Amino acid sequence: MKILVDCFGGDNCPKAAVEGAVLAINEKKDLFVSLVGNKEAIEGILSNLSYNKNQLDIIDAKDAITNEDNPIMAIRRKKESSMVVAFNKLHEEDYDGMVSAGNTGALLTGATLIVRLIDGVSRALLVPIVPTIIDGKYTVVCDAGANVDCKASMLKEFAIMGDVYTRSAFGIENPKIGLLSNGAEEEKGNALTKEAHQLLKESGLNFVGNIEATDMVSGLVDVIVCDGFDGNVAIKAVEGMAKNFMVLVKAGVKKGGLKAKIGALLLKDTLRGVKKKMSTDEVGGAALLGVQKVVVKTHGSSTEIPFKVSILQTAKLAQDKVCDMIAKGIK
Amino acid sequence: MKILVDCFGGDNCPKAAVEGAVLAINEKKDLFVSLVGNKEAIEGILSNLSYNKNQLDIIDAKDAITNEDNPIMAIRRKKESSMVVAFNKLHEEDYDGMVSAGNTGALLTGATLIVRLIDGVSRALLVPIVPTIIDGKYTVVCDAGANVDCKASMLKEFAIMGDVYTRSAFGIENPKIGLLSNGAEEEKGNALTKEAHQLLKESGLNFVGNIEATDMVSGLVDVIVCDGFDGNVAIKAVEGMAKNFMVLVKAGVKKGGLKAKIGALLLKDTLRGVKKKMSTDEVGGAALLGVQKVVVKTHGSSTEIPFKVSILQTAKLAQDKVCDMIAKGIK
Repeated sequence: MKILVDCFGGDNCPKAAVEGAVLAINEKKDLFVSLVGNKEAIEGILSNLSYNKNQLDIIDAKDAITNEDNPIMAIRRKKESSMVVAFNKLHEEDYDGMVSAGNTGALLTGATLIVRLIDGVSRALLVPIVPTIIDGKYTVVCDAGANVDCKASMLKEFAIMGDVYTRSAFGIENPKIGLLSNGAEEEKGNALTKEAHQLLKESGLNFVGNIEATDMVSGLVDVIVCDGFDGNVAIKAVEGMAKNFMVLVKAGVKKGGLKAKIGALLLKDTLRGVKKKMSTDEVGGAALLGVQKVVVKTHGSSTEIPFKVSILQTAKLAQDKVCDMIAKGIK
Repeated sequence: MKILVDCFGGDNCPKAAVEGAVLAINEKKDLFVSLVGNKEAIEGILSNLSYNKNQLDIIDAKDAITNEDNPIMAIRRKKESSMVVAFNKLHEEDYDGMVSAGNTGALLTGATLIVRLIDGVSRALLVPIVPTIIDGKYTVVCDAGANVDCKASMLKEFAIMGDVYTRSAFGIENPKIGLLSNGAEEEKGNALTKEAHQLLKESGLNFVGNIEATDMVSGLVDVIVCDGFDGNVAIKAVEGMAKNFMVLVKAGVKKGGLKAKIGALLLKDTLRGVKKKMSTDEVGGAALLGVQKVVVKTHGSSTEIPFKVSILQTAKLAQDKVCDMIAKGIK
């Protein structure tokens, strides 16, 4: 397996990217990683780390794409950026996949324009992993924001890709697929989801019907199908509630006097456990599906561990030939 | 103020509706309530309560609409149901408003077909109150599920109605209005929200721009404008996360041994306080805006307190002539 790592673009880059890559190759001996970005900066970080030199090299790229850059302009004009250089290598050479913590819009644009879409796929989509309350169970959202105006036929494609993806990512045999709607009943939905519902019923997939956003984290299904606008709204609503819930608890403890403070102290590990459970740091990044090679977007705030996990996740998806499986599924 | 109370349709009806109405008239001496539903059943409950007989009467209705009924069919055919009888009284006589815990779809249909839309309003909308982490601050969602396929011009109407509503419901002078989107930047959004964004910018309202679903409960704005599909998704995602978060904490405490159990015990009041803070039982029900008289949907699971609160909320909205203000705003 040969994986490219875009070492610039994330909040903790290049350090987190380089250290994460070294952790990954030290863990997986048949893995080769190319670190893309400013050579001097990367070498400076590598000099303090021990690893097998035959598992790693550096591809120099002087420029970098920032989150402030316009995605299309950045991909077209920043030819020397670590992301564009990595995309070109991924497309032209025998690399199996790529990981980046950079500008999500640019990543989608670059994947589509440089790596290219799989035949029959209309649009690439962004598929993050959402933790659920069931131990070891995760739900993926197809699409979480790449495509804000969708046709019903696109939602069917998303379902096919989500099905292939969850089989590889989580070893699920017959993934349960739900369509995000405003009610569980078949007649509920808007014009888009009502049409998509019928297409999914006839798709041959394990389609369990409409699901409500109350089930975003309940583990009811393996794949949530929705257009990118609704997927984005649902995920951000969940994130916002989780964050604000902790804010409320902290404020309550502050007001609650000594009794509450002692209680919070004793419950600290439990609440930390809940927070850890709802984090994807050790699960993986968001996959960009629909393009000809595996591309994974790790969180912009990723430290070395999420980087390592995303690199190993990319290798796994490539090993399972997820892109070929999607091509077959779409046909 | 004369308010109709549909005493059938909610989980705890007729008891909760009747007791809530009595609590309301005992609290507000210039309030008159007509209880609509099976006379014998209502009289049976009233016999145990003390109240001023001049503030209350009963309108007999032998039938009731259930949550299983098809909304349009139920309104058209169940002429003797408490909801339809109440709607006809609201339309034909000098009542100021109506409260029901019944079938939301039927309530919207009945309000539109019997009470009728305000001139210039394209569709009635459902406006629930969402608690925020800021003490005493609430956000309303326009629309939360009545209209799943909207035009941009409808979202502008929703904003105008939300503006009028929050001025009366919360005494806010110049309500902050946000448009739910997949990013805060102006260029973010789907075809619908991009067009709506421009209309809202030119509306003369206090439009603060796009907001993300992470701000559903942060109190950033007073009115969240969105189509009913997205509003429903966002609210249910928040509800689901809140519910499942508590499930996780309980499970963590169970696993956490004695230390966690004692911690939970000491923190019980604090967590209960958080739960109470995120409940709307003492704030009010969801208003049906856009129709010629005030209609409030109280939660299907409402007990007497939420019923009382919704009845007083209805009286307040009628007193402030919210329907006339909306008519002016739409013109």
